[in-house]
Amino acid sequence: MTTDQFSSKLLENAVNEFARLPGIGKKTALRLVLALLRLDKEEVENFGNTFIELKRNIHYCKSCNNISDSDMCNICSNPARDHKTICVVENIKDVMAVENTHQYHGIYHVLGGIISPMDGIGPDDIEIDLLESKVKNNGIKEIIMALSTTMEGDTTNFYLFKKFSKYPLQMTTIARGVSIGDELEYADEITLGRSIINRTPMDDILSI
Amino acid sequence: MTTDQFSSKLLENAVNEFARLPGIGKKTALRLVLALLRLDKEEVENFGNTFIELKRNIHYCKSCNNISDSDMCNICSNPARDHKTICVVENIKDVMAVENTHQYHGIYHVLGGIISPMDGIGPDDIEIDLLESKVKNNGIKEIIMALSTTMEGDTTNFYLFKKFSKYPLQMTTIARGVSIGDELEYADEITLGRSIINRTPMDDILSI
Repeated sequence: MTTDQFSSKLLENAVNEFARLPGIGKKTALRLVLALLRLDKEEVENFGNTFIELKRNIHYCKSCNNISDSDMCNICSNPARDHKTICVVENIKDVMAVENTHQYHGIYHVLGGIISPMDGIGPDDIEIDLLESKVKNNGIKEIIMALSTTMEGDTTNFYLFKKFSKYPLQMTTIARGVSIGDELEYADEITLGRSIINRTPMDDILSI
Repeated sequence: MTTDQFSSKLLENAVNEFARLPGIGKKTALRLVLALLRLDKEEVENFGNTFIELKRNIHYCKSCNNISDSDMCNICSNPARDHKTICVVENIKDVMAVENTHQYHGIYHVLGGIISPMDGIGPDDIEIDLLESKVKNNGIKEIIMALSTTMEGDTTNFYLFKKFSKYPLQMTTIARGVSIGDELEYADEITLGRSIINRTPMDDILSI
């Protein structure tokens, strides 16, 4: 689409603003802008101001680096959570994914990335110091690494495992194995191999 | 996703605002909000204010019903366009699609919908009066119906053809036929049948 097609400069600006977001092309952007135009004036003002307010007032939790409304997120400030267990994740979407399981009651640490030499992301580019200060000062008993099961995730797992080996704590990673609901014949051989090596006693499964 | 998953109310509000747009689910909305958070504060303010400004200042062209920055869009106010030929389209996206062909030099009329009894949209729900007043007062010579080739499009074509039959003008529709680049064996039989009935002299094609 060339710019001269737009009958309105205001419309063009609005389309360009949407189109700068990842995964939104010009056609989708136009569709979204036309949908916005069908809303009331108040609703559109609310739409626009929500993002401005978010950017102005957002905090990152001083303890876990998660997005928060104040200096301490509602997970870190919850006394009912186990503050001796840290689940290390790449980003806030992963916090939500783990929370959604309702199987974890400790606190989190959001790295804000994973080590990826291909993308030029090294250990200094992710939030490790904050994690180490927690490990050092708060008597952490277990760190659960919940990163993607990719080369980058494994590199980060290995780096942190080495770095924290001097502290008296247990380091674990989330289990790798065949997804629940998967047909065995379609599982790849590395996953299937892993799931045989790390086989689970039957009574562990049956007690869930 | 349940609401208790969000670690921040501001974040949740922003996600919900995106998710009210058509085709944007909660997961996509979260991805977009996180992308917005990576922008500068000024860029986010600009993002939000663009939509507020659009809604506050947008006009609809008094002549053709197209979206415009003023009372008259830049197509209707262009003296170089042929003001005796009107291309009737459903919405402003169709204006852009026709403009993009660079094959049309007349003016437009945006109906703002097509007659669709199934959806309860009748002739009174679309902008026909404005079109008729142009036909009556401006000595229009040709109306080109450029609607979707669906039942609703054909119904609207037929309704307007009947309505304007009392005026001394020519009414045409855009050609229906096999798309350029299509393999003949995959064309449906109705389209192919139409394209045989409305076959074009070879010299018309070769002169383009």
